Amino acid sequence: MSAAKKSSPKVLLIGFGNVGHKLLEIFSKEKNKFPNLSFFDPRFVGIFTKSHGALVNKSGLDLKTALRNFSRRNKFSSNHQDFSKLSSMEAVKKLNYNTLIELSTLSINEKGEPSVTYVREALKRGKNVVTANKGPAAFAFKELTELAAKNNCKFLYESAVMDGAPVFNLFRNDLKGCKITEVSGILNSTTNFILSKMEEGETLENSINEAQGLGFAEANPDYDIEGWDATAKITILANNLMGAAITPLDVEREGIRDITFTQIQNAIERGYRLKLVCRAWYKDKKLQTRVSIEEVPSDHLFSTVNGSGSILRVETDLIHPLTIAQEKSDLYDTAYGVINDLLTTIS
Amino acid sequence: MSAAKKSSPKVLLIGFGNVGHKLLEIFSKEKNKFPNLSFFDPRFVGIFTKSHGALVNKSGLDLKTALRNFSRRNKFSSNHQDFSKLSSMEAVKKLNYNTLIELSTLSINEKGEPSVTYVREALKRGKNVVTANKGPAAFAFKELTELAAKNNCKFLYESAVMDGAPVFNLFRNDLKGCKITEVSGILNSTTNFILSKMEEGETLENSINEAQGLGFAEANPDYDIEGWDATAKITILANNLMGAAITPLDVEREGIRDITFTQIQNAIERGYRLKLVCRAWYKDKKLQTRVSIEEVPSDHLFSTVNGSGSILRVETDLIHPLTIAQEKSDLYDTAYGVINDLLTTIS
Repeated sequence: MSAAKKSSPKVLLIGFGNVGHKLLEIFSKEKNKFPNLSFFDPRFVGIFTKSHGALVNKSGLDLKTALRNFSRRNKFSSNHQDFSKLSSMEAVKKLNYNTLIELSTLSINEKGEPSVTYVREALKRGKNVVTANKGPAAFAFKELTELAAKNNCKFLYESAVMDGAPVFNLFRNDLKGCKITEVSGILNSTTNFILSKMEEGETLENSINEAQGLGFAEANPDYDIEGWDATAKITILANNLMGAAITPLDVEREGIRDITFTQIQNAIERGYRLKLVCRAWYKDKKLQTRVSIEEVPSDHLFSTVNGSGSILRVETDLIHPLTIAQEKSDLYDTAYGVINDLLTTIS
Repeated sequence: MSAAKKSSPKVLLIGFGNVGHKLLEIFSKEKNKFPNLSFFDPRFVGIFTKSHGALVNKSGLDLKTALRNFSRRNKFSSNHQDFSKLSSMEAVKKLNYNTLIELSTLSINEKGEPSVTYVREALKRGKNVVTANKGPAAFAFKELTELAAKNNCKFLYESAVMDGAPVFNLFRNDLKGCKITEVSGILNSTTNFILSKMEEGETLENSINEAQGLGFAEANPDYDIEGWDATAKITILANNLMGAAITPLDVEREGIRDITFTQIQNAIERGYRLKLVCRAWYKDKKLQTRVSIEEVPSDHLFSTVNGSGSILRVETDLIHPLTIAQEKSDLYDTAYGVINDLLTTIS
């Protein structure tokens, strides 16, 4: 990319967990590590947590101070000069910002709320939205996409699937003229990690604990184990890439709770690995979606995915199948997906 | 992509081999196979071959007639109502078109000529250029890129590396804010096919013959075997993604001519496969480029690439490595890369 002029959009951040922290660190104390971000200097006009306070400053918060303040008691201090008593919803509706960054976590029972409402209210005001949360695009894809188009603003969610890997840019924008006929992938790191551990003889329970210890399980581990996180991801892919209008509740779903060591060993002996695969395809011209355990040949691309890696394969009517793989993912990758979307809002 | 208005840019085609034929077929007798191309109807105002005649029609040639006419004697008949005695160079300089599609073949000894000159002359006139030929971007990248920017037109070459896989769109445009620190890949199908065959005990010579029989060897097989095709590809990647200004002559180069069955077997016994790998990376802040035989662990992504497949891996300063893989490639993939670029010229 050629040298660009300094750009300083005003952003409102809702959700301040690990990804939110990493995002602020990248734009403050780690800024010098990334030369191609030097032109980009977003102003955070508000940071809102679920129940640990909020900061607001219409000219932009001092990020280092905000991080330091929060780290002391794991909440924002009411003594902070920018402390705010606004609710997240009030902030979305009233503050002056260019882009809402929505980083709260997926809720299946609440059908993506309250995130769906945050996103809707921001888009209604013509504000861009960038979210790493799967809820909005999984539960209200059509409504929110149409609202963004109508109000000439952007609704972006690259981080929701494969973290920083730009899968929507790649498969939606870069495959011009192709019709996507099938999508499949290994998109949930926790179950993939657990299945790898179980191949080595570890129990399901111990593997879950280890995944949580390493910090890459979902907030609610059932969302991983029961396949909900994976259904949300294939829902977004089917909606975005294949013109569907479904929610995670429409996806045929199998988790890994009942997998046994014997099943895994049996597959390996026959030259296969068991993987939790997300899939969307056409059958008799009707779109099908499924998350299920599949036997993958050991020399297949999908068998190379271990640990926190992920992979996505797309078939089209025009070119041979393309696959994008991410070897490993951590907070930088999710935060980067948000940054990439932010850069899309100014391009 | 949402339904778009009919678009009919005027294109001039230079080079009418297998890819050129497939391109015309897709826009004529195969048109109904690809619903997402229905809005797109390029007008071919000229088709120029190296030494088998040319057709020109300022309103657009009838593609079915052109294909039929050529197929009769493997050249355009001077009786065809649109037969032209212009040279390719005159056509580039004089005809009225929006985009030059340049499909002639790579020439190393001539340093990309005459293609470089065709492209330069078109860009000088402010015409877009789409080329599947590696020559222009490998031998005159900086000049042609700057010329296109100055004249506000496009210089595109997605088909030059990994055929239809949109690698430049993905790694240059979609990884906003990232600095690419290393690129590696298996990018020459012929040598990859030959190495796979040799693993099965076939000789080098027989494997070359088989690759040629299957139609995916370069026009000059030495370009594959000696690594020239691969050096041209890593050159373009280094120029486009890493800011280099090199030519294939600057790349450290090793071919597969001297590989023996014993070496291959020896590697397999130790859990590796031999692959001809293209690589660009920094050493002491200086960009290095190389095409060489590398030992790849058998559970590595690169080991899954067989036959006409290819793969490209990118490291960045910000996110973990991303890899894009194409399982298989034929004329549709190369023609699609051209179509994708054509669609970029109108977007």
